[in-house]
Amino acid sequence: MQIDIQLMPSPPKPYLLSDRIVVVIDVLRATSVITHALSQGALEIIPVATVEEAFQMAKVFPRDAILLGGERESKKIQGFDLGNSPREYTEEKVRGRKMILTTTNGTKAFHLVSSGREIFAGSFFNIGAVSRRCLELDRDLLIFPSGDEGDFSLEDTICGGLLIDLIAKIGQEPIVLTDASYSAQILYKRFEANLLEGFHFSRHGKELMRRGFEEDLAYCAQIDMTDIVPQFKDGVIRVK
Amino acid sequence: MQIDIQLMPSPPKPYLLSDRIVVVIDVLRATSVITHALSQGALEIIPVATVEEAFQMAKVFPRDAILLGGERESKKIQGFDLGNSPREYTEEKVRGRKMILTTTNGTKAFHLVSSGREIFAGSFFNIGAVSRRCLELDRDLLIFPSGDEGDFSLEDTICGGLLIDLIAKIGQEPIVLTDASYSAQILYKRFEANLLEGFHFSRHGKELMRRGFEEDLAYCAQIDMTDIVPQFKDGVIRVK
Repeated sequence: MQIDIQLMPSPPKPYLLSDRIVVVIDVLRATSVITHALSQGALEIIPVATVEEAFQMAKVFPRDAILLGGERESKKIQGFDLGNSPREYTEEKVRGRKMILTTTNGTKAFHLVSSGREIFAGSFFNIGAVSRRCLELDRDLLIFPSGDEGDFSLEDTICGGLLIDLIAKIGQEPIVLTDASYSAQILYKRFEANLLEGFHFSRHGKELMRRGFEEDLAYCAQIDMTDIVPQFKDGVIRVK
Repeated sequence: MQIDIQLMPSPPKPYLLSDRIVVVIDVLRATSVITHALSQGALEIIPVATVEEAFQMAKVFPRDAILLGGERESKKIQGFDLGNSPREYTEEKVRGRKMILTTTNGTKAFHLVSSGREIFAGSFFNIGAVSRRCLELDRDLLIFPSGDEGDFSLEDTICGGLLIDLIAKIGQEPIVLTDASYSAQILYKRFEANLLEGFHFSRHGKELMRRGFEEDLAYCAQIDMTDIVPQFKDGVIRVK
């Protein structure tokens, strides 16, 4: 199994994707929200790129059947039900409901990799389960950090590095790493003992702290709080 | 001073460049060749993107006034004087001559960043001198690894990480790092005691070994063999 990671969230080479598993990671906070909401009983999540698209999409459903969630500049969007803190997505609020989600980086990333063979959402919350699913499928893997407005994101790459480290440890077959995936594993190892140190350094982590979301950082650094593996297919994210 | 590094060699955002120093790095082997050749007395180096362009450009000069150098698939190009091993560029061969150079990654990178305020060529050979020049100029810096056919390159990023580490150590002013430059510094630290370990892991390092250029790896890992800082301006690389 070859594991690659695309360190900047530009459109990947299509030939890489059609035969690969793709794991999208946006630790702060889209894939953490997605994992959390589905673990609390949300039916499905439709990731959309723009706020306008979210409102358009919402019209298709009875208003009380769906939840609008997401952020712009880290803050809840006017007219939306929920922001982008995983802690908001409690069982009480999400169970049995569909969600439409739009965020600055994460929801766009799913559409960038939509030609992947199987596309999963990864976060620290479910990284162990994602590593086991990847090993079961036993195909080449592209990890796709959603990044920070088109740039490299430290926290997403650390999470990708943990996924690489887990697969390398658990897997029976030899794992082939690229320059990028080897580097991501090194970055994870640097912060293994203190993930929050990495979050606190990162530009996006600092922005969240400045905007009053410091608790989200500690919350999103929790490893393996669930075994679900959200899958993106035909425009919708569900748990199989 | 803010230091950023673009981890994948796509065209950078133009607004980043016009007020920034840019350091192009292609350790294996274009910027090592450039630094070596100029340190041995070459007059100037014209980096061009294609083999055809190199032959066209050569017609402008008397044949014995110029040297054609470079590689495709790591090997010397038919009809060229020299390949892409720094060791070939001896004083005997290059002193007093102009050079036209075309390589797979490095020579293209200079053209990608041509809107930078000042553009230097960095390699392990001259990294100390480059760090001092950057500190003298005291402007924001973008490090631009040439990468590996559009992908992230471990060895270039390690060299960029050393540049960051030197500037952070020598500089009097506080240095602002981005997620990417902080990560490059961490990667350098991982290989600080054994640069060759990083070269041997990297895809491009492995390719050079397979093609019989193993000696180039050890040669290109030599730190501070010269004090020259090659500068790219108006399409030509010279030492001021």
